[in-house]
Amino acid sequence: MKLATLKDGTRDGRLVVVRRYLSAFADARAIAPTLQAALDRWNETEPKLRALAAELESGAARAEPFDAKKAHAPLPRAYEWVDGSAFLNHVRLVRKARNAEVPPTLETDPLVYQGGSGVLLAPTDDIPLRNVEWGCDFESEVAVILGDTPIGTTADKAAPFVKLVLLANDVTLRNLIPTELAKQFGFFQSKPATAFSPVACTPDELGASWKDGRLHLPLRTTYNGKLVGEPNAGPEMHFSFFQLIEHLTKTRAYTAGTILGSGTISNAERSKGWSCLAEARTIETIESGKPSTPFMKPGDTVSIEMLGADGKSLFGRIDQKVVLA
Amino acid sequence: MKLATLKDGTRDGRLVVVRRYLSAFADARAIAPTLQAALDRWNETEPKLRALAAELESGAARAEPFDAKKAHAPLPRAYEWVDGSAFLNHVRLVRKARNAEVPPTLETDPLVYQGGSGVLLAPTDDIPLRNVEWGCDFESEVAVILGDTPIGTTADKAAPFVKLVLLANDVTLRNLIPTELAKQFGFFQSKPATAFSPVACTPDELGASWKDGRLHLPLRTTYNGKLVGEPNAGPEMHFSFFQLIEHLTKTRAYTAGTILGSGTISNAERSKGWSCLAEARTIETIESGKPSTPFMKPGDTVSIEMLGADGKSLFGRIDQKVVLA
Repeated sequence: MKLATLKDGTRDGRLVVVRRYLSAFADARAIAPTLQAALDRWNETEPKLRALAAELESGAARAEPFDAKKAHAPLPRAYEWVDGSAFLNHVRLVRKARNAEVPPTLETDPLVYQGGSGVLLAPTDDIPLRNVEWGCDFESEVAVILGDTPIGTTADKAAPFVKLVLLANDVTLRNLIPTELAKQFGFFQSKPATAFSPVACTPDELGASWKDGRLHLPLRTTYNGKLVGEPNAGPEMHFSFFQLIEHLTKTRAYTAGTILGSGTISNAERSKGWSCLAEARTIETIESGKPSTPFMKPGDTVSIEMLGADGKSLFGRIDQKVVLA
Repeated sequence: MKLATLKDGTRDGRLVVVRRYLSAFADARAIAPTLQAALDRWNETEPKLRALAAELESGAARAEPFDAKKAHAPLPRAYEWVDGSAFLNHVRLVRKARNAEVPPTLETDPLVYQGGSGVLLAPTDDIPLRNVEWGCDFESEVAVILGDTPIGTTADKAAPFVKLVLLANDVTLRNLIPTELAKQFGFFQSKPATAFSPVACTPDELGASWKDGRLHLPLRTTYNGKLVGEPNAGPEMHFSFFQLIEHLTKTRAYTAGTILGSGTISNAERSKGWSCLAEARTIETIESGKPSTPFMKPGDTVSIEMLGADGKSLFGRIDQKVVLA
C-alpha cells in the first residue's frame, strides 16, 4: 500500500491512497482525514486503507491523476524526526572533512540526532537559504514512520513498529556545524527543515528488498541534472532500522507518526558516487588536496529517487531547488 | 487566561479553561477539542477562550472542580520541544561536575538542544527509570509555548509569538551524558520524557513578573519533601525567551505548539538552593571534595511550583515520583 498527503490549504493536508505505479490516487478522508490520524488508529484504519488500495488497483475506486507537485511531505509536521547515521562510510568521510575524530564506539553504539519536526518540506518545495556562506548541502536518506513504540523495544521485536517507508532529504548547513558541535549540544541551526518523498509505502510493498530492517536497493541522487550517486541502501547500513529502534527506546517511548532516518546513504565503493556534497568534497580533498565542488547556491537542484526491481519509482521523486530566503 | 488538558482516554486529552486560583475548570471543547487545535487557529480561538475564562471567573460558566491529578501535560505530545540552557550559572556548575569546558561563546551564543516531544509526561505521572545506574536527575524550568513562528524572527519582534507560559521538569540521566556527548551528536538517550505543569498561562496572567521575555519569580523545587531551591527565574536568565527565539529561527520556522524551555533555573547566590541534583553535587564537591547527594532512586519525589506575588500557585504543581520501569 502506498499513501500520500495532498496539499489542500490545511496544515496537515489530506490523506490519499496512491496506485502502485503512482499514476492515480483515491481520496481516503472517509477513513482518516490525515496520515497522522490514520497512524493514531492504525489497527482500525490500515485494513480499510488496504481495501481502498485494492479497489484503486482494480479500477473499482474513483481515481484521480496523481501529481507529485501537489504532494506535501506524507507528514507535513511530525511529532518526532530522529535521524540516525548508520552508514559508517559517510561518518568516516564527513568527519575527515572537518578534521574530527570518529567516536571509538562507532561500530557498537549508533549515532542519532533529534531533528526539528514541526515544519517539514514537501518533496518539491524550494530549499530556503538565508545565507550562502552557511554551506548548504543535501543528504539522501531512507526513513521509516513508526507506530506507537514502547520503551525498551529490542531489535528482534521491532519489525511490527515500522509502518511505512519513505525517502528524505536531510538538508544540512555544513559551515554551521563545527561551531555548533563545539558547544557539545549537537546539531541545531545546522539542520534546517527536512524534505520527504511524495509517497510512503508499507514494507510489504517493497517485497524482498525490505530485509532485516534495511532497504536493499540503490538510492539515486541527481544534482543539477547529473546522476551523482546510486549507492545501495541495504548492505552497508551498519545498524538496521530495528537496531536503531532499540537504541531510541532505551530511555523513552515514541508516539505513532515518529519518523526515523537512516542517515546519508553511502557505500565504500567509490564508483557508487555520493549522496551529499560533503562526501564529494572529502573525496576530492583526498584525491587532489582540496575540494572543488562548492556547496549549494540559489538555483542549484537536487533530485532523490529509488527505483524498484522493475525500474519503476517506488516513492516518487524529491525534486528541490535552492532559493534565497 | 489559564488553560489545561484533562486526561479523557484520548491521546491528546480535552481542553479546559481553569479559574485563576485553579479551583475550577470549564469545558472548552466547544471552542477547540485540544490545546493543539486551539493553537492551530489561535486568532479565532483565543478571544473565545478568554470570554469563557471571564465567565468562569464571574460564575456564569458551568464550573467543575479542578484536580491537577487528572491533568495531562498541557500538550501531551508536541511537534517540537526545544530546550535552552540560558542560566549560565547552571552551565558552569554542571560542566565543572563532569570536568568539561564551557564553550568560549557561552555569553554570546545560546545553548539549545532538540528534545523528544512525542510522548510527554503529565505533571503527576511517575518518572519511569529502567536502570538506577543511569543517574536520574530532575531539572526545574520555565517554558513557553509558541504560535506559528517564521524563520528569521528577531528578538525585538518575538514577544507576540509567545502564547503560553508553563513549568517543566526536564528529566535527565546524568551518567549517560558523557559517552553520549563524546559522540558529538548531542543529548539523546540521556533525555527521557519531560513533564509539564498542570496549567499553562497567557503572559498577561503573570502581570509585571513577565518582563523582557523572562519570568521574574522564584521557582520552588521540593525534593523528598524538603524545599531545596527557590532561585529567581528572571534576572539571571542570560538569554531571554525572545533571544532564544531569534536563535531558533535563524535557519527554520516553527509550528504552533512548539515548546521552548529556559534550561535549569539557577542563581549564583548559593542560598537560593538548586533546581537539579547535579548542581547540588557540584557544590558539595567544591565544598568538601566529593558529592554526597545521590541521584534519584525509585520512591524519590520531586515537586516544582511557582507562586505569584499573592502567594497563590500560578501553574499548579509538578509532583512526580521515580518508579522502576
